[in-house]
Order: sequence, then C-alpha cells, then structure tokens
Amino acid sequence: MMTINDVARLLKENDDILILSHHFPDGDTLGSAYALCGALQIMGKRARVECSDEIPNKFLFIKNSVEIQQFEPKYIVSADVADSKLLGSLCEVYGNKIDLCIDHHSRNTSFAKQSYVEGDSAACAEIMYLIVKELINEIPKSIADCLYTGVCTDTGCFKFSNVTARTHKIAAELIALGCDHALINKVMFDTKSRSRIALEKAVLDNLKFEYNGLCATVVLTRDMIASSGAVEDDIDGISSLPRQIEGVAAAVTLRELDSGAYKVSLRTDNALNAAQIAVGFGGGGHAAAAGCTIKDSRENAEKALLNAIGNALKEQNMI
Amino acid sequence: MMTINDVARLLKENDDILILSHHFPDGDTLGSAYALCGALQIMGKRARVECSDEIPNKFLFIKNSVEIQQFEPKYIVSADVADSKLLGSLCEVYGNKIDLCIDHHSRNTSFAKQSYVEGDSAACAEIMYLIVKELINEIPKSIADCLYTGVCTDTGCFKFSNVTARTHKIAAELIALGCDHALINKVMFDTKSRSRIALEKAVLDNLKFEYNGLCATVVLTRDMIASSGAVEDDIDGISSLPRQIEGVAAAVTLRELDSGAYKVSLRTDNALNAAQIAVGFGGGGHAAAAGCTIKDSRENAEKALLNAIGNALKEQNMI
Repeated sequence: MMTINDVARLLKENDDILILSHHFPDGDTLGSAYALCGALQIMGKRARVECSDEIPNKFLFIKNSVEIQQFEPKYIVSADVADSKLLGSLCEVYGNKIDLCIDHHSRNTSFAKQSYVEGDSAACAEIMYLIVKELINEIPKSIADCLYTGVCTDTGCFKFSNVTARTHKIAAELIALGCDHALINKVMFDTKSRSRIALEKAVLDNLKFEYNGLCATVVLTRDMIASSGAVEDDIDGISSLPRQIEGVAAAVTLRELDSGAYKVSLRTDNALNAAQIAVGFGGGGHAAAAGCTIKDSRENAEKALLNAIGNALKEQNMI
Repeated sequence: MMTINDVARLLKENDDILILSHHFPDGDTLGSAYALCGALQIMGKRARVECSDEIPNKFLFIKNSVEIQQFEPKYIVSADVADSKLLGSLCEVYGNKIDLCIDHHSRNTSFAKQSYVEGDSAACAEIMYLIVKELINEIPKSIADCLYTGVCTDTGCFKFSNVTARTHKIAAELIALGCDHALINKVMFDTKSRSRIALEKAVLDNLKFEYNGLCATVVLTRDMIASSGAVEDDIDGISSLPRQIEGVAAAVTLRELDSGAYKVSLRTDNALNAAQIAVGFGGGGHAAAAGCTIKDSRENAEKALLNAIGNALKEQNMI
C-alpha cells in the first residue's frame, strides 16, 4: 500500500508532469488536478492539466489559477478518475500510459501503473490537499480555492453522508489559508441558470402524487428540455426535486431519451428497495437509488412503474 | 470581558437552571439551549428549556434529547437571544430576570445581568459547544446532534459568509462525537413540504424578468399563500428564489400583507445598493439586502419598484 508520502516522493522525483481530469469535468476532478498542477509549478516543475471536455464557465477560475505550459509529458497523473474509460476521448491517447492514479472511488479499476486510492475520502480534493501539503510549504489562496471547490462540490456543501470529521478539518484549514468559501458556495450552490428555472417550472407543472403522497413522479420530455434550453448540469439538479418532498417514499423521474425510450431514476427511503423495483425493468442499483430504461410510451412507462411501486408499498403494508 | 471559563464557572456554581430560547425558534436557539440543558442534567443539576412558541416538528428530536424536569428556577440563562423582546410572550415573565445571556449577535442589547457575546461566531451553538466541553468530559451523541443542528442551520449548511475555520473545526469534532450529520442535513436542507412545492410552482408562474434579465420579480399574494397551505417556514425559503438566478443584479419579492399592502424584499449584487432603493420607499437595510412596505395596488407597487431599479441600473451604466 502506498502512502501520501510515497505519492509526494514520486511527484518530487518526476518532471514535465501531465495531469488528467475525467470527462464531463466536475469541481472535484478539476479542483484536484489544478491544485496539483499549481503546486508542481510552484516547485519549479513544468506541469499542465488536460481534460477531454470543455470546462464549464463556473470552473474557469480553477483553470486560470495556473500558468499555461507546453511540453512533452514524461510523467502522467490522473485525478479523480475511477476507470481509464472516464478519460473520454483522452483514453485512446493516454489510457494505458498513466503512471500514477490519485482517486477516492472504491470501485477504481487500477488502470494505472501505480495507484493511491482512498475509498472513504469524501472528495479527491481531500487527498490532494494532503499531497500538496507535502509538496510545498505555503499553500497560496489560488490552490486553496481549487481544493475547497473540490471538497464542497463532491459533498453537496458538506451535506452528504460521505462527509467525515477529516472533511471538515480540511475545510477549516483551507479557510485559514484564505479560500473564498462564501463566493465559491454562492456560485456552486446558490446560482441557477434561467434554463434551469424554466425546466423547474415545466417539471412542477407535471409533478404528480400517487398512493396518498407516498409516490411522486416527474417527467422530463425532449420538448421540455429543448424549449427550456437546459444543459446536463441543469437536468442533474432537477432529478433531485421529487425526492425532497416531505412524505414521499418513492420518487420517480422519467427522462425521455433521443431514442424515445424513458430513462428512469428511482429514489426511495428506507422502507422500499429501489434496486428490487428497477430489476423488474431490467435495471439495477442500490437500495435507495436505482435506475432502468423503459422502451415504451410515456403513459405505459408511468403506469408500469406506478404498479410496481404500488406492489412494493403493499408488501410493506404502507397502503 | 467574560471568558468561556467564567461562563462555565457560573453554570457550575448555580442550580435549578432555566434556559430560554427566542420566539419563532430555529435550529440554533433550540440546539444551543437543549445542548446546555443536557449537559447540566448530566452534571446532576435540574435544568429545563422554555420557549414562547411551539417547536416545529423537525426540531422535536432536540426537545426529546433531555429529561422533563419541573422546578422553581434559581438561575436563568438565555441562548441565542439578542434582545429580551425576542423572548416573545416570555419577555413579560422573565425579560428583566435573565442572569446570563449567551449569544452571537453583535447587536445584542445587554439586557441580562451578565452576558457572553461573540459577534463573529457563525452560530450560538459554536459558543455553546466550547461551554459544554468545559462542563462535561464526555459529550454524548444526543448533545452533539443538538449542537450540529445549531451550527448547520445558522450557516446554510456551511454555505454562508459567516462560516469561519472554527465553524468547520467544531463540525469535525461533533462528527467525531457521532452526530447524525447526514440525517440532520437531509431533514433541514433536503426536505420540502408539499405546501412549499405548491408555492414554488405559483411563484415560478409569475416570475418576471426586466432590463435584459438584470431584474427578477416574484409576487406572493394572500391567495397564493392560502391556497398552497404554506406556513412562514415555506415562505422564507421562497424569497431566496429570484436572487439565485444567474445574471440577476436586483431580485424583488413582493408579499401581500393582510392589510393589502405589499412587503418588499430587495436583494442586489455588488453593483447596486439595495438600501438606497428601499429608502426611496420609506424602508431601509443593507447594501445587498433591504426592504420596505408599499401601500398601493400590486400593479403600482411593481411599477414604482421597477422604475427605481431602472434608475439605479442606469446610474451604474448597466442598461
């Protein structure tokens, strides 16, 4: 088993370091990758980050925290990447050439020559903070901002069950280093696009309750998505809406795919097993969160799901 | 100036202690008061909490964390109370009898015989944690749950600018003590009543943008509130909706009062001074958040506000 010290030693020994983020980049993969890049540049090394996809506007301050450096990479590191496939289009170029993988997904596929994986870390940025502390003596605000963004975005602003005492301890140290925590949180959690607002309105217009309010269903059609101008980021937020409603034991989001089929996301509370319901439709998942795809009309898909949920509620004597 | 040690000494020296929360009780006043009550009971003292108003259901676990004890109080402490008027109906009974005030509002009116106020503490529960640590050696999970609830609710789950390194350090210690942080956060931040959802829908239906999206306006009429069944807690959350929208420099919420007048809440970003606009309508407030009351029809109130905001935007060359 490697230690944080081993990781730091490898990074100190190598030069011209390329750091890779996963595709559809989020705050944790970008915050972790650019924090490491910034630290390596402070050490006088050449370093840069690559990502297969465009960086969303709200994360541009992370990208702008480092110098642009061009060089032929001699050492390749991945940050927050659980599987080489998640490098997107960069998988073909670098997939089998990763020297060091730094990650927090317990399902990591060990695709790199060496890996440091902490499956119980809430964010990859937690691990990266410990590494950066070993690399440089004084962590500048710009790197603290990157790391804080990684930690807060992967924990729903310290809301999720993945948060540990260490998560808060690291947040305390990043704030002491001067990170702009309140501004970062405003951008990440308190800013909604007009498309998102339009989509929320459309979704609330079709929100339906069944079984005395124990089941809530919303549908996202291709038309709704197109006419609101919503992007993936907007849609992600929406699917959590029905499960937030008080008294709801089963929350269903049906999203119409380009094929016309419906992608179903199912969230349940402790009383019901979401995976068991999803398996009945050829899907799967966890007890509290599962999914499946139904190739049928909206009406038939809704009806079949409601039936299955009704049966599960009956089994638990809830209706 | 008193210290935490002085406060702890006073509490150790006294017996039969009554602890008061402020009216319209929130997570911080209840979490702080009941945490102290629990610690005093562990010390073998008689202690109880009183509040003028009913405790919302979501905070009942806090109330249930202590034993019910009846006694004639010999020492009275207030928790998170900035002014004796905020005791509600209990002000008449106890307003001039408070022995010790423990608070984090810099505007505290020093109404008690002795006061310990930390104006830069994000939550009263932060201060109470430091006091409880002085009173008992082992803090049980039930007290950690109370204190965590106080900290997370007064900081918007660590999102607001009042959060300091100490806030996170204390959260880390409360999690290490076993508090149910994820469950508490789910109840406090990820649960919406059906009334709240109905009100959100009504508000989104009348959301209007002006001045190229720089101004967003929503109206809450008495009818909308009555037909949704919304309570104050639901309405509070709604008023933050327009200010979350990307690109909005001035967010206006008009709420119809029982008198038929409109209570206006105005939130602005750095470019505009909300207080300056509100003063024009006989109101006031801060640069980023201000309010006023307009005794006129909805149409006239909206028109006058939009005019004033338009003038402010022109002054800043934003339109």
